[in-house]
Amino acid sequence: MERITAEEALRLVLDKVYTRQDSQNIPVNEALGRVCAGRMYAPIDNPPFDRSPFDGFALRSADSAGASPANPARLRVAGTVYAGEVYTERLERGDAVRIMTGAMFPAGLDCMVMQENVRVENGGAEVLVSEPVGAYENYVRAGEDIRKGQLLVEAGERLSFAHLAILSAMGFADVPVKALPSVGLLCTGDELAPAGKPLPPGKIYNSNETLIGLRMKELGFFPRFLPVSGDEAGMVAAKIDTVIEELDALVTTGAVSVGEKDIFHEVFKILGVEKLFWRLNSKPGGAILCGIYRGRPLLCLSGNPFAALTGFELIVKPVMGKIASRDDLAIRKQRVKLDGNLEARPIRRFIRARIEDGRAKFPADNMSGQIFSIVGCNCLLDIPAGAALSAGSEVEALLY
Amino acid sequence: MERITAEEALRLVLDKVYTRQDSQNIPVNEALGRVCAGRMYAPIDNPPFDRSPFDGFALRSADSAGASPANPARLRVAGTVYAGEVYTERLERGDAVRIMTGAMFPAGLDCMVMQENVRVENGGAEVLVSEPVGAYENYVRAGEDIRKGQLLVEAGERLSFAHLAILSAMGFADVPVKALPSVGLLCTGDELAPAGKPLPPGKIYNSNETLIGLRMKELGFFPRFLPVSGDEAGMVAAKIDTVIEELDALVTTGAVSVGEKDIFHEVFKILGVEKLFWRLNSKPGGAILCGIYRGRPLLCLSGNPFAALTGFELIVKPVMGKIASRDDLAIRKQRVKLDGNLEARPIRRFIRARIEDGRAKFPADNMSGQIFSIVGCNCLLDIPAGAALSAGSEVEALLY
Repeated sequence: MERITAEEALRLVLDKVYTRQDSQNIPVNEALGRVCAGRMYAPIDNPPFDRSPFDGFALRSADSAGASPANPARLRVAGTVYAGEVYTERLERGDAVRIMTGAMFPAGLDCMVMQENVRVENGGAEVLVSEPVGAYENYVRAGEDIRKGQLLVEAGERLSFAHLAILSAMGFADVPVKALPSVGLLCTGDELAPAGKPLPPGKIYNSNETLIGLRMKELGFFPRFLPVSGDEAGMVAAKIDTVIEELDALVTTGAVSVGEKDIFHEVFKILGVEKLFWRLNSKPGGAILCGIYRGRPLLCLSGNPFAALTGFELIVKPVMGKIASRDDLAIRKQRVKLDGNLEARPIRRFIRARIEDGRAKFPADNMSGQIFSIVGCNCLLDIPAGAALSAGSEVEALLY
Repeated sequence: MERITAEEALRLVLDKVYTRQDSQNIPVNEALGRVCAGRMYAPIDNPPFDRSPFDGFALRSADSAGASPANPARLRVAGTVYAGEVYTERLERGDAVRIMTGAMFPAGLDCMVMQENVRVENGGAEVLVSEPVGAYENYVRAGEDIRKGQLLVEAGERLSFAHLAILSAMGFADVPVKALPSVGLLCTGDELAPAGKPLPPGKIYNSNETLIGLRMKELGFFPRFLPVSGDEAGMVAAKIDTVIEELDALVTTGAVSVGEKDIFHEVFKILGVEKLFWRLNSKPGGAILCGIYRGRPLLCLSGNPFAALTGFELIVKPVMGKIASRDDLAIRKQRVKLDGNLEARPIRRFIRARIEDGRAKFPADNMSGQIFSIVGCNCLLDIPAGAALSAGSEVEALLY
């Protein structure tokens, strides 16, 4: 198969991948970061009724007409209304009601004065208002914030704490969200030794499960970590066959190059996987093999950590985004200025970097096996084949 | 008590709040976002041994001296070494070894050629190298990425997927992390009605639990949601008394103003809470009451949602940051240009806004009861008392 661009490769996979259409109702307080599965409309106004913004006295605006410090309006305090209550007593002209923040205005009263601006007399039976209060002054009308019937959350929006607080304010106990995709992660390699034990000669510890698995977690997924597998094609094929129908996608690391133990080509043959592409015309992460098996994408990344991460960002993340209806996981680009020089190379490169104040800082070395300098990076610089670039040159960055 | 600035208020609380010193060892793959409790040093090199970056043939550089397409060096293929293996056979001058990506270099061989650049003859028994290969060409040295003894993660760093992948590469199964603070959230108010049921007249649904609780979750905490409470001081005091020792901090909403049911002043008296401050000289969120009870901060926010959120960002978030050793939760400021005009007001204001391309967009209205326009905001604009500002003016923004 021909090497292709990362863009072509992504298009080939996206064309074949389904978006999960099923949804579930879950409690609002458990829905942070989930994708809203339907348009949510306001079932009520917010505030639900005309209410007071302060503690003080509600009155009829007309009853304060002409009031002044020398000649205050003297009003009878007919009662008190607390937040959560409905004031039901009949009110006459010249009546005021002591009202608390958030309490519903008694019928017929159209404004209020804050308690620090009045004088209370006769043991609380009367209140003196020393200037005219306009109609609807200190008066919060029902629906001022949200009108009944208004669109609250668009289908497909990722739910933030603010969206969910709005739904709570509207009385929703549950919210319909898109089902969370089930993505498997299978790391392969006879060279992988278990953590927490001394390292046998020639072996390495498995950093890919953590690197790719926790990157998935950071993006809001809960990957299924499959047990690490050795380099035996029949065994790996059998494992994939066993789990694939419980998954929406399977990501693997290792064994996708051209060595004798790069078994995934053989695994694809054994299973009859529909191969979509093998190898990008860029590096690192060029050694990536993708196919569709029983309707699910098999996304086989390099065993070199930074190569695996690059393949993840270029291909796997947007694929997971499509499955999960997560628009925010599509490729996002930004033009940035280089903070150093780059020599020309015959192949397109993706270089780990950190954008700070509009400039992209990058480590001297970008080898695919190097992991230490991944810390703090927030983008991949897209360096065209053959381009020698000096500090200050503009390049495109793919944002993490 | 005098109204004080948000900065003075924060200092008063921070002075009295402890930082949790206890830590726990947890599996690396479960430590995303946690705070590293100790300096982590490399127990081994990475790579742990000299290894091949490609599939091909390892050889002695000297054996390829003078090779050319017309006169290639003909080497005997003495064997094969796969990733994970140690090649132990004795090698003579003129011997090559087939080597796979990631495999350890056999002792005595100091470079390799990629398999696409050689010719294999005699059924794999010989390999022809048609140009000289330099010493250490295509040769990854042990420790090139990470040196044994090197500092990997500083104590106090928040662990990203990249930090944790490094720890995995070093063979750590577990990582010591700071204990996660236990923060309680108690919403009070007789006006609060349960979600999922019709709203009785005069009542409102509780949005503060979701707003503040999920904001905490977004920041990496798992708040303990206490059952909603009515406005009875003795009852609320008893509840606080029951749970306080299981918590590192308690956040409440509602009942902190000057109304008759603003019971927290009474709660503080009943419990004998050491009061630190009451009320900021800013709004919204000025009605905030803080004290220390049995060594833990009680942080009592307004019942108005946006006022509660403002108090959370100004005071609670940095306090949680201190308890949890999370430097990233300290107040972060940025100067931004206003995207609209603001009239002067006699009191300092914090206005919800969204910074986009260096400009701060803000809704026309910033009332503390309004919740809809919180969506999408990512900062609070700090508007000094008395300042009339026109579009393009620079102000300070507190970043969420």
